[in-house]
Formats: sequence, C-alpha cells, structure tokens
Amino acid sequence: MSTAVAGKGLEGIVAANSGICWIDGDAGILSYRGIDIHELAEHSTFEETTYLLWNGLLPNALALREFSAQLALARSLDQGVIDLLKVFPKSATPMEVLRTAVSALSFYDADEKDNSHDANVRKAYNLTAQIAMIVAIYDRLRKGKDIVPPNRSLTHAGNFLWMLNGEEPSETATRTLDIALILHADHELNASTFAARVIAATLSDIHSAITGAIGALKGPLHGGANEGVMRLLLTIDKEGADPVDYVKGMLAARQKISGFGHRVYKTEDPRATHLRKMSEQLGKDAGLPKWYDMSRAIELYINKEKKLNANVDFYSASTYATLGIDIDLYTPIFAVSRIAGWAAHVIEQLDDNRLIRPRADYIGPTYPSPWIPIAERL
Amino acid sequence: MSTAVAGKGLEGIVAANSGICWIDGDAGILSYRGIDIHELAEHSTFEETTYLLWNGLLPNALALREFSAQLALARSLDQGVIDLLKVFPKSATPMEVLRTAVSALSFYDADEKDNSHDANVRKAYNLTAQIAMIVAIYDRLRKGKDIVPPNRSLTHAGNFLWMLNGEEPSETATRTLDIALILHADHELNASTFAARVIAATLSDIHSAITGAIGALKGPLHGGANEGVMRLLLTIDKEGADPVDYVKGMLAARQKISGFGHRVYKTEDPRATHLRKMSEQLGKDAGLPKWYDMSRAIELYINKEKKLNANVDFYSASTYATLGIDIDLYTPIFAVSRIAGWAAHVIEQLDDNRLIRPRADYIGPTYPSPWIPIAERL
Repeated sequence: MSTAVAGKGLEGIVAANSGICWIDGDAGILSYRGIDIHELAEHSTFEETTYLLWNGLLPNALALREFSAQLALARSLDQGVIDLLKVFPKSATPMEVLRTAVSALSFYDADEKDNSHDANVRKAYNLTAQIAMIVAIYDRLRKGKDIVPPNRSLTHAGNFLWMLNGEEPSETATRTLDIALILHADHELNASTFAARVIAATLSDIHSAITGAIGALKGPLHGGANEGVMRLLLTIDKEGADPVDYVKGMLAARQKISGFGHRVYKTEDPRATHLRKMSEQLGKDAGLPKWYDMSRAIELYINKEKKLNANVDFYSASTYATLGIDIDLYTPIFAVSRIAGWAAHVIEQLDDNRLIRPRADYIGPTYPSPWIPIAERL
Repeated sequence: MSTAVAGKGLEGIVAANSGICWIDGDAGILSYRGIDIHELAEHSTFEETTYLLWNGLLPNALALREFSAQLALARSLDQGVIDLLKVFPKSATPMEVLRTAVSALSFYDADEKDNSHDANVRKAYNLTAQIAMIVAIYDRLRKGKDIVPPNRSLTHAGNFLWMLNGEEPSETATRTLDIALILHADHELNASTFAARVIAATLSDIHSAITGAIGALKGPLHGGANEGVMRLLLTIDKEGADPVDYVKGMLAARQKISGFGHRVYKTEDPRATHLRKMSEQLGKDAGLPKWYDMSRAIELYINKEKKLNANVDFYSASTYATLGIDIDLYTPIFAVSRIAGWAAHVIEQLDDNRLIRPRADYIGPTYPSPWIPIAERL
C-alpha cells in the first residue's frame, strides 16, 4: 500500500473539504462562510454568526428572529442532568464537569439513536443552549448558590451572564461577551473540531463528538491556554514583579508563555486585534487597567524578542478578568462559543462522510520478533 | 503556506511515528511490538499482551506477576462513580454510560492534574481495571441485580465475567474472552486511537483522550459494527430466513452488511481467523452451532460475491452470543480490551508530542463575501 508521510502533527496536511471557515495564515485573515471576522465582530451577534455557520449565509430579519427564538427555547436541561451536576464533587473542574455532563445529555435525548441531518440540527440547538447552561449552573452550585432559571428574553450572551451572576448584565458586558463568542465560534480544523470530526466519522452520535471536542479543548495547547495566560498575570501581580522582567526570566528558563504563536497564523491573529481593543476599553471603563497594561507590556516584549504574536487566548484572559469571570471558566466559555463551529463541522462531516483513519510509520521492534516462552525471558 | 491534500478520510496518510503496532494490510499481518498476533492469540494472556503493549517487550515471570497483581489491585471504583452508575437512567446504552462514567472518573483521580509519563502509567492501570468494572456493574444495575465485588484472584477476563454474571466463569469462557481481548487490544491508528491521540496532543488529560476514544468506538463504522452483525443474525433467525438469501436481498437493496471489509486489510483480517475458530468450537461445545453456521454461510457468500473478507467484528458477534453475552455489551467489551492500546498510544504521543492540527480545503463562499445589512437581505 502506498502511503504519504505527513509533517508531524499533520502540519500542512489537508484532511477534509470544508465550506465553513477560511483562514489565510500568512495574511492574518479569518472568515466564516466567506465573511471576514472583522465584519462579524463589528456588526454581528453570536446568534446571527451561528446561523451563518450552520446555514452558509446570513439570515434575513424573520429567519434571525425565528432562529434566536428557537435557540432561546432550547434553554432547558433535563432534571436528571441537573441532579448529576448537584452530585458531582465540588472539587471537579468546570471542564471535567462540562465534558461529563455533555456526555450524559445523550441519556435524555429522545433523538439519541437518530443520526440524520435533521436530528443533528435539532441536537445542535440543544447543545448550544445547554453547554452555556451547564457552565453557569455548575459554577453557582460549586459556590453554594441557587440555580438561576434561564431568561428566554435575553440573548445567548446575556442569558449566560444572567444565569452565571443572577443579575441582569450591563450592556457593555453583554456586548463584550457577545463579540468574544463570535470570535471563538469557529476556526477550521483546530484540534477540538478535528477530534469531533474523527469521532463523528465513525457514524457515532453528535454527543460523542462534542464530548471528545471538549476533552481536546481542555488542553493547554488549545483552549486551556487562556487560563494559562491569566495565571501568569496573577502571579506577576501577586509578586509585584515587572511584567517584562518576569517574562524575560521565564524565557531564560526556557518556559513556555501561553497565548503566543499559532500553528496557522504567521502574522497577527485577527481575533487578538478585537480582544486587545476590548480588553483596553473595559479596563478603562472599569477603572481596572492593570490586566490590559500588563498584557500589553508582555505582548510588545515577546513581539520584539521572539517574533511571536499574541493569539486569541492572550487578550481573552484580561478581557474576562476585567468582566469579573473566574479563571477556570475561561476555557468553558470558549466551549460555550465553539459549539457553534463544532456542530457545523460534525454535520458537514456526516453529510459527506468517510471514516478518518490514517496510518502510522512503524518504528518499533522488527517483525517478526520471536515468541519466547516465559521461562526463557531475561 | 504549502499544503498537501490527503485522500478522503486521511487514507494512506502517515499521521504519526509509532512503535506499538505494525500491520501489513496486503499480507494480512498484525503484530504488537513486533510479535505476530497469531503467536499472542495462541500463547499469551491479556495481562501479558498489555504489558507488551505498554513496555515494548514481553515480561519475565516476576515482571508479569507484579504487573498482573497491580492490575488486579486497581479493581476499585470510587463510591462517587458507583453512585453515578446507580442514578443514570436504565434506558441509557452501555456505551453512553461508559463514556460518561470514564469522564467522571477524573473527578476522583488524585493525579488528575499530573500529566507526566509516570502519572499516566498509573492512570492506565486504573482505567484498564475500571472500564471492565463499569461495564459489568452497569449491566447488573440496569437488570436490577446486586453489584458483584471484584475478585482479585481472577484474571482480567475471568474477573470481568465474574462481575458480570456473579458466578465463577468456566475455563473455556475465560480463555475465549481472554483471546478476544488479546485480538482487540490494539490496531495502530484506528479511528478511536487516533481520536485519543488528537485529544492528548493538546496536552489535555488521559481521561479526556479515553472518553473521546470511547465515543469514536461507539460508531457503527468502528467498534459498533459487532453489534450490527449480531442484530443481522438475530433478524435472520427470527424470520427463519435463509442467511444467504437474506443477505442477497440486502445487497440488492444496497444495504451495508456489518463485519466485512477493512480500510487496512486487503486480505483476511488475521483476527477473524481466530474468532472464526473460537466461534465454531464454542458452538459445538455448547450445542448451539447456529450462530456460527449462519455466519459462515454469509461469509462464504460475501467472499464470493463482493470479494470482501470478514473483519474482527464479524465472528466476535457469534462468539459473544454463544457465550451468552448481551448484544449491547459487544462494543463495550471491545473497549474493555482496546483501553490497553489507547493508553499505550496516549503515552507514546505525550512522550514526543506535537499538536495534531491539519488544514481543510475550503469549498465555501468566496472571500470576501460582503457584509449585507439585515434590512437588505433577501
């Protein structure tokens, strides 16, 4: 059999045709269904962007109203899942809980055995609404607070903040989160989306695919990086250190600094542009500029010294911190957004499916190695 | 950026170096760490084969004794996980439950945040023991039976049957399952193992990787196929149909017949050779030859008509049926075995890691598509 050897980590290998997301890493362009991410960040909402990702075009006013209503209607969790969230140990991290609870959602899904296109679209609405609810509910439960019922008159971003904090969010907070959700909603064959497609391609169910994607997103080389950035900022703040000196020391000790560099972008990550701006503005408005200021100082230094650019994770940290969100919710919030892209990719995979099954280059003991009876082994 | 376009489903693409498993699909050769699968099926045990997969060589008597003792010692589930298994709805399928419970195992793992080689080896022992326990315990719970505590004096295969049935298994049943576990233990970059490596490569934890792998195995194009084979045999039996006539009708209606063909093997799957033999012998011994006889008739017909060979799933169905195991446990039993390979691959991936992140070939709307204000959209 003929095989072709790919770069390590499948770098530069085209693993699928996809009509969802186009990235030009050299030019720093990200687009969903042909529309530039800057247009979407400026003009769109998470609901509209999700419609775009799922349907391939922007909705008219009626279609958007119906779509948003359906997504709001899907804000419902079976009592069985809420009961599970209550018995999970409070020490469990939100990403472990999200992975486990999303897996459990399939128990209560009447369509579980229906893997058709239409059934998966229905499940995509549910999963999008439910992932946000699970993150908010578990955060309240672990803090000993009451669960806040969903508010179906709020947007997706607004309802998430409402269920998390139990009070109507400010317009600034809602719009900031909404833009962050737009920016994180899809990114072509990133590791979690690729994991979802590999799982879906066995014709397994969408809950399996999304559960696997959440597991991949958790990793510090993927979504987990935004929490790594904030832990660094907190350490620097606590030690009263100069951010540049601190990072200089890390580089000297050959430590990895989260939030810089990207497999695909060779120039500025276009999502970082928006998150930087929001982080700065929020810091000014809240009279809490330190997270932005520290971040900016580190960014300029790393740009100069390492020729590395900030990625999507770098300024999402200071943005979420200024919004008062707990660190270990940053990666779950990434999932609250990325479910839009994951669902689009799973459905696209299933619409023209083939099992994803590469080969390995064998580097082990020579075949055939002899069978040695146990008494004769050293 | 230069990219190379892979065959659909990454066919023929080398995605990793691996020293675990070597397959020659044209010659029908499968080997673990250089040792032919036929040698292992004849002489080895699941414990010894797992040691081989994890350590790269066969253990001597002392090493095997210690390894087996450690695996037996790992037969322990936190009460929190048992409580979850009790509250999961009895309608949940064993694969959904296994996926969810393995995800929940991380809540109770003291090493959850330690992703070092040594910690992952410890977790591999635990996961191998716990997956078997979860499958057996949930099957009893859903049938309203008491949980059978593990018996640490039995082998892995023997203890699984003991916990499943609550009685000491026969030597034949234990050895049959043991061989089945050896045959299923690894298969290079199959879809579930590849999913596990994609997830692990973000530096996420091993529980995330194995949870994703279980989700992939569930699919009917992967592990789920053995259940598909048995459902076919049951339907034919119930209708009193001639197996060849029935399958002829399915082919005429362009229906897929589970258990035939394989992405890698172009000749007989060497695992099928053993499962066929076991299925035949078990049927004779049990005075229940019908599942083997039907399977053999179908196999000969599909060989002749479609030039397709039986794969690992085809005779595992009749083998497990003759052992009296419920259909929806066939794929979970695949996981009871494949955890050996999954763990070996996750640890190998992390020992020389790079993020697995391919690209897509974009086939969507042209960039830049204009932003159209909502009032102007059709």
